[in-house]
Amino acid sequence: MPSDGFQVVHETLTVRTTGKGTVEITDAVNAVLRESGLARGTVTVFCRHTSCSLVLMENADPSARQDLEAYMDRLVPEDEPYFVHTLEGPDDMPSHIKMALTRSAEIIPFDRGRLSLGTWQGVFLWEHRSRPHTREIVLSVHGVTEQ
Amino acid sequence: MPSDGFQVVHETLTVRTTGKGTVEITDAVNAVLRESGLARGTVTVFCRHTSCSLVLMENADPSARQDLEAYMDRLVPEDEPYFVHTLEGPDDMPSHIKMALTRSAEIIPFDRGRLSLGTWQGVFLWEHRSRPHTREIVLSVHGVTEQ
Amino acid sequence: MPSDGFQVVHETLTVRTTGKGTVEITDAVNAVLRESGLARGTVTVFCRHTSCSLVLMENADPSARQDLEAYMDRLVPEDEPYFVHTLEGPDDMPSHIKMALTRSAEIIPFDRGRLSLGTWQGVFLWEHRSRPHTREIVLSVHGVTEQ
Repeated sequence: MPSDGFQVVHETLTVRTTGKGTVEITDAVNAVLRESGLARGTVTVFCRHTSCSLVLMENADPSARQDLEAYMDRLVPEDEPYFVHTLEGPDDMPSHIKMALTRSAEIIPFDRGRLSLGTWQGVFLWEHRSRPHTREIVLSVHGVTEQ
Repeated sequence: MPSDGFQVVHETLTVRTTGKGTVEITDAVNAVLRESGLARGTVTVFCRHTSCSLVLMENADPSARQDLEAYMDRLVPEDEPYFVHTLEGPDDMPSHIKMALTRSAEIIPFDRGRLSLGTWQGVFLWEHRSRPHTREIVLSVHGVTEQ
Repeated sequence: MPSDGFQVVHETLTVRTTGKGTVEITDAVNAVLRESGLARGTVTVFCRHTSCSLVLMENADPSARQDLEAYMDRLVPEDEPYFVHTLEGPDDMPSHIKMALTRSAEIIPFDRGRLSLGTWQGVFLWEHRSRPHTREIVLSVHGVTEQ
């Protein structure tokens, strides 16, 4: 039996970052999902940039994100002597690398109109540049209206 | 011409892990796909946790996974002096980091009712905690009934 | 109101690599999207191999990719003394690890028949083996015909 009322709903979030760090966008994703009125399907969260990225991470204790960010800064240091792509500043190339090591898109199922995230799982935009940026996140909701 | 019989089918897998390591779930994903009766589309495999993750990996020679796991243990050591989030044990923060460096979701196309995986490509849940855990994996199958 | 004319369109790209490095496949993905005639939805780009991977990366200045590749070669060296899976050569195990640290699939929304990529964002197949290989990339386009 074909699912009834399949729809594709798109929305773009604009997120202002304040420099390096993770910014939770779970509420904004949930708001778009609620607005769609869809019951069951997936939300694709897509980052239109190559110097920031996405990650699903624990959202209960902020110290977990603090340690994750500190780890990544050590894993991908600035000013590596072999870097060639340095015109845009010492944080540019590490930003691309951190993006490549995390995710440009997350895809999250939803049921009964709610994201199927774990209890302490949140959606985060991870800014890798040192300065504030305005970032665009495209949401593509694919789902059916009846549960 | 619109595709006939589009459906969205959801299922939750419960996987019991035995501590750190990769657990193949390809057969379970295939079983849900077969049960759906769908011919062509995608399966989204979603991990509802932030201290385990997913990866598509060679499933022929177990030594490849053994080396991958050993590499990751060296890349993300326990007891880093700068870790703040340590209340839940020395394996907690490394687990979140390993999750962030791999994937929370995999999306796999299927054709003629079969996953379009490569010959030696399997779907693995990667437990990063030292102790056994019960993990939930949500599958969202989007597809059409006719090939 | 259900979306009209929902379709699922599959295509397989065959990409010949020349050894280690990133190969842009954005144009090929765009061509399949155009051919589908779909207006709004997502393209899933799926890599059927475990020793190459996908990444969305800056496609303006090739030096950014050069630095990314150099970084990854340092992060995952060949001939680690603890590697067991070495029969297929010193570049085999590092290839699997680099794959696990990047992505097997990318999912990209599209609107008005165009990928919602950022201005300098391209889709790349990343060959991790030293020798040339023929690689298969499966595209699964899910979308509706009307904007």
